[in-house]
Amino acid sequence: MLKEAIYHRPKDNYAYACTDEELHIRIRTKKKDVNEVTLVYGDQYEWVDRQWVTSSIPMQKSGSDQLFDYWSVVVNPPHKRLRYGFILKDGAETICFTEKGFYAEPPTDDTAYYFCFPYLNKVDVFKAPEWVKDTVWYQIFPERFANGNTDNDPAGTLPWGSKAPTPSNFFGGDLEGVIKNINYLKNLGISGIYFTPIFKAHSNHKYDTIDYMEIDPQFGDKDTLKRLVEVCHDHGIKVMLDAVFNHSGFYFEQFQDVLVNGEKSRFRDWFHLREYPLSANPLPNYSTFAFEPKMPKLNTENPEVRDYLLEVGRYWIREFDIDGWRLDVANEVDHSFWREFRREVKAIKPDLYILGEIWHDSMPWLRGDQFDAVMNYPFMTNILNLFAKGTITPKQFIENMTNVMYMYPHNVNEVAFNLVGSHDTPRILTECGGDKDKVKQIFTILLSFYGTPCLYYGDEIGMEGVMDPGCRECMRWDEDRQDKDLFGHVQRLISLRKKYPLLANAGDLQFIPPDYHETCFAYTKSDGNKTVLVILNHSPEPAQFDLPAEFKGRKTKNLWTNEQYEASTEKLDGRGFTLLEF
Amino acid sequence: MLKEAIYHRPKDNYAYACTDEELHIRIRTKKKDVNEVTLVYGDQYEWVDRQWVTSSIPMQKSGSDQLFDYWSVVVNPPHKRLRYGFILKDGAETICFTEKGFYAEPPTDDTAYYFCFPYLNKVDVFKAPEWVKDTVWYQIFPERFANGNTDNDPAGTLPWGSKAPTPSNFFGGDLEGVIKNINYLKNLGISGIYFTPIFKAHSNHKYDTIDYMEIDPQFGDKDTLKRLVEVCHDHGIKVMLDAVFNHSGFYFEQFQDVLVNGEKSRFRDWFHLREYPLSANPLPNYSTFAFEPKMPKLNTENPEVRDYLLEVGRYWIREFDIDGWRLDVANEVDHSFWREFRREVKAIKPDLYILGEIWHDSMPWLRGDQFDAVMNYPFMTNILNLFAKGTITPKQFIENMTNVMYMYPHNVNEVAFNLVGSHDTPRILTECGGDKDKVKQIFTILLSFYGTPCLYYGDEIGMEGVMDPGCRECMRWDEDRQDKDLFGHVQRLISLRKKYPLLANAGDLQFIPPDYHETCFAYTKSDGNKTVLVILNHSPEPAQFDLPAEFKGRKTKNLWTNEQYEASTEKLDGRGFTLLEF
Repeated sequence: MLKEAIYHRPKDNYAYACTDEELHIRIRTKKKDVNEVTLVYGDQYEWVDRQWVTSSIPMQKSGSDQLFDYWSVVVNPPHKRLRYGFILKDGAETICFTEKGFYAEPPTDDTAYYFCFPYLNKVDVFKAPEWVKDTVWYQIFPERFANGNTDNDPAGTLPWGSKAPTPSNFFGGDLEGVIKNINYLKNLGISGIYFTPIFKAHSNHKYDTIDYMEIDPQFGDKDTLKRLVEVCHDHGIKVMLDAVFNHSGFYFEQFQDVLVNGEKSRFRDWFHLREYPLSANPLPNYSTFAFEPKMPKLNTENPEVRDYLLEVGRYWIREFDIDGWRLDVANEVDHSFWREFRREVKAIKPDLYILGEIWHDSMPWLRGDQFDAVMNYPFMTNILNLFAKGTITPKQFIENMTNVMYMYPHNVNEVAFNLVGSHDTPRILTECGGDKDKVKQIFTILLSFYGTPCLYYGDEIGMEGVMDPGCRECMRWDEDRQDKDLFGHVQRLISLRKKYPLLANAGDLQFIPPDYHETCFAYTKSDGNKTVLVILNHSPEPAQFDLPAEFKGRKTKNLWTNEQYEASTEKLDGRGFTLLEF
Repeated sequence: MLKEAIYHRPKDNYAYACTDEELHIRIRTKKKDVNEVTLVYGDQYEWVDRQWVTSSIPMQKSGSDQLFDYWSVVVNPPHKRLRYGFILKDGAETICFTEKGFYAEPPTDDTAYYFCFPYLNKVDVFKAPEWVKDTVWYQIFPERFANGNTDNDPAGTLPWGSKAPTPSNFFGGDLEGVIKNINYLKNLGISGIYFTPIFKAHSNHKYDTIDYMEIDPQFGDKDTLKRLVEVCHDHGIKVMLDAVFNHSGFYFEQFQDVLVNGEKSRFRDWFHLREYPLSANPLPNYSTFAFEPKMPKLNTENPEVRDYLLEVGRYWIREFDIDGWRLDVANEVDHSFWREFRREVKAIKPDLYILGEIWHDSMPWLRGDQFDAVMNYPFMTNILNLFAKGTITPKQFIENMTNVMYMYPHNVNEVAFNLVGSHDTPRILTECGGDKDKVKQIFTILLSFYGTPCLYYGDEIGMEGVMDPGCRECMRWDEDRQDKDLFGHVQRLISLRKKYPLLANAGDLQFIPPDYHETCFAYTKSDGNKTVLVILNHSPEPAQFDLPAEFKGRKTKNLWTNEQYEASTEKLDGRGFTLLEF
């Protein structure tokens, strides 16, 4: 066995409390290198005759990526304390892996060799709000979803959908437009709306905040938001707003004061200023988002700024009962601020969802003290690479997805914010070159995967659009221009996800090994009692998928066709899919 | 190159801010498998002609353990943001390692492949108090150090040192005894005292607290402590107290109330009670430290308990100006409590030292939001295994030490609390079977290593004692019974550590490869300008140590003998040592 490939380190994704009772333990070994892994464990204080008392339990090989196998097991330590090691076997070779290294046999003269999960303290368990697992999100870019009130249209507003979107044009979309179209959303079946920023700002995207305490007048006023949240809640829809705390906009009053008064400004410590007067050339002489002089970075280490932003965080929950905060450029703001943010907002609304925008490995933000989830861009990238760009094979897709899955604890994955497009990316149908079958497969995965899926407004009716501003076109309300077939597909998947919890987060996801079939790939989700099997044919040609032995001959229900039959071989159309329940 | 052995994950010990400007990046490869590692990095937002702009810098192989080589580099990103990957070379083979896997060349079409340290926020930098790095600690078990005031002796106090220590006998040691002997400590040269518990408790060790807000009357009163701290501070000595927050003692008033009133006690939620009435048989029906019914675990998730213990934490700093808290059984208390504890105590005294008792891998407590350090038991274990038990060779000693060193960031290592014995272990001279030369070598390492060293009272004068209570004998004040030679050795080392900062934490520690010499092992500490070289002869026979080429022929100063000469070959006595400065 290749010792150098074996990896485990307590906490994070390798040893974590999944509930108040359950510890999940995982270990990584070289792919196809180890036959059997057993967890050997005990309570550090339980001794008989100077020998430490241990138990053992087999681990299951639950996933594989390019280089590694991942093994998992669940234990419920009765006294909430766990010391543990791993016995690895391959043929005649057996080794015991501990924190202190490798041994021929598990030592029992001391517990100090072993890995330690010292105590399962409930308060430290990562806990995202329960409702998030079962939510289907819909992302709305408010300027482009619907114009419900023409009285608040900004000067120069163009007729709805009359022109292509540009970085600076306006079409009059607003909050009233969402209220008026709530039945459309209800009919689609979504249960949460993520709004890109709605606070007073200069641009059409509103990421350049002028006032965090005011609704942008082109979107309505505080009364409109109040009614919007009420209407949403009445329809079982949660509301998440976008918090841009990394940087303010150029016209943020405090920044304007610094521009005018320089070193003498009472707000000079609200930003990261290096020289006076402020200058943007050749590069800004103050810290900004990227190198964008119009987006000055806020100094979240300044107690005054912290208090201000924390009050923003609290205010919209307290007064408007919003259900979630999506945090823009969340990775560049300090951890200390996010810890305080979590304490403050959860104190008002314990089941508020905190979602960070982070594109890379996000474990340091997902330890239970900061965010509930991050936007799952690796999920999107894998989907695009397989379906749109064709740069990876189904095998690589499975390996990449497994790799990401094992980067995080199970309870973190359950609330991962999965997306396949946003206001920052080309639309999914455009990415797929207009191939609707591919998009249907993508939505099938999105809505049967673990995590909490999000649709970008208009994708469900087949809107197209290149990288922003192209992807920010006005929503097509003219039914003749809506793809009803695609809408029906998405609607059906959402309804199935609600009806069959295994399609959401009720079970553990495992891929069928990628070498099982030439063009099809498949995954199961099982809660130990029932199992769903999702099969996708990656080829444009029809395919037959001979079911794995464990399913063959069993009675199954095809969740898409509603037929019941004895499972044997599934026939799939080119780019087709099947959803089976066992 | 063995891809499966290559490991890096941002934050923790692999990518961390060491100062407000410096990022330290490390990577692990299979031992002797890779010839060259280069860091390729850039600012995520710096692009020219749709190509990401990168720089590169070679990494240094800075340590090796049993299976792996560790490579390190320091970067100062001008905009505090870093995206990075690694180029690894072995002979003709070159690979690029990123967060998304391996590539033949560093991709420049997107930064999303790369590892990310998104922003160096000062407030998140791990910062232990500056003074700790240069402190030499002395651990005092108050009941046994000195009896300075016989008026406070408990009933049944035995004449000083008249009997062997038992779990229950008393000898009258107190705080006044420390005050009266401050010159002894000053003369030895120590600069910090770690006191095991001094609060009101039942036993002689005082780990079974009755009242966290009172000094145990056998040790004196609050006025005595105030004077003690003043006297210490006047002599440049810091004072650290022991906080036993995981559990209370049996006679803690709140626990007694629960014992009497059961379910009706207003303190029932102060503990983890499962049934009423409380019972200790066969096992306690309430949570305890280990399975000890007399040490009920405190419910640190209860806000009332948190407030109480946080006030304890604040009170002794605010009113008595103590300099550190050592936290008993720190790993079993929730992280959330320790985060709040840090905020509260550092708000009163920003340079207070927070030291946790954790025996295993402690990274999750050392991320800057909880502790400043943990007790470095792996250091002690390695020392004992090499010198006392003889279960490892110098080569394994070096590998184990390197392994531990690379488990943590450099700035964490600088304040690691290194010890070779305590009130919980046999004394070091006893462990070494009375071999004083071994003990001298051990102190030589302890006092020339990275971290903050601690001496257990009496070890410096050659006291012996088996596992507790044996190791808790009364301090020998009769000079005829003190080993003056050993005292002089320790005193000299402390004074050298103060005089030559490289012997403390001014430089990076690196071991000379273990195959360099048959019986001697050596390490260097270098700040880039000066270097010290510590050589130890592990054999009882004399040895010659031919200096590595980089030192040969250079002028050196022998810090122990004060001789200056041209370095060539060092002659070491059996179990001897040499300290050279270049």
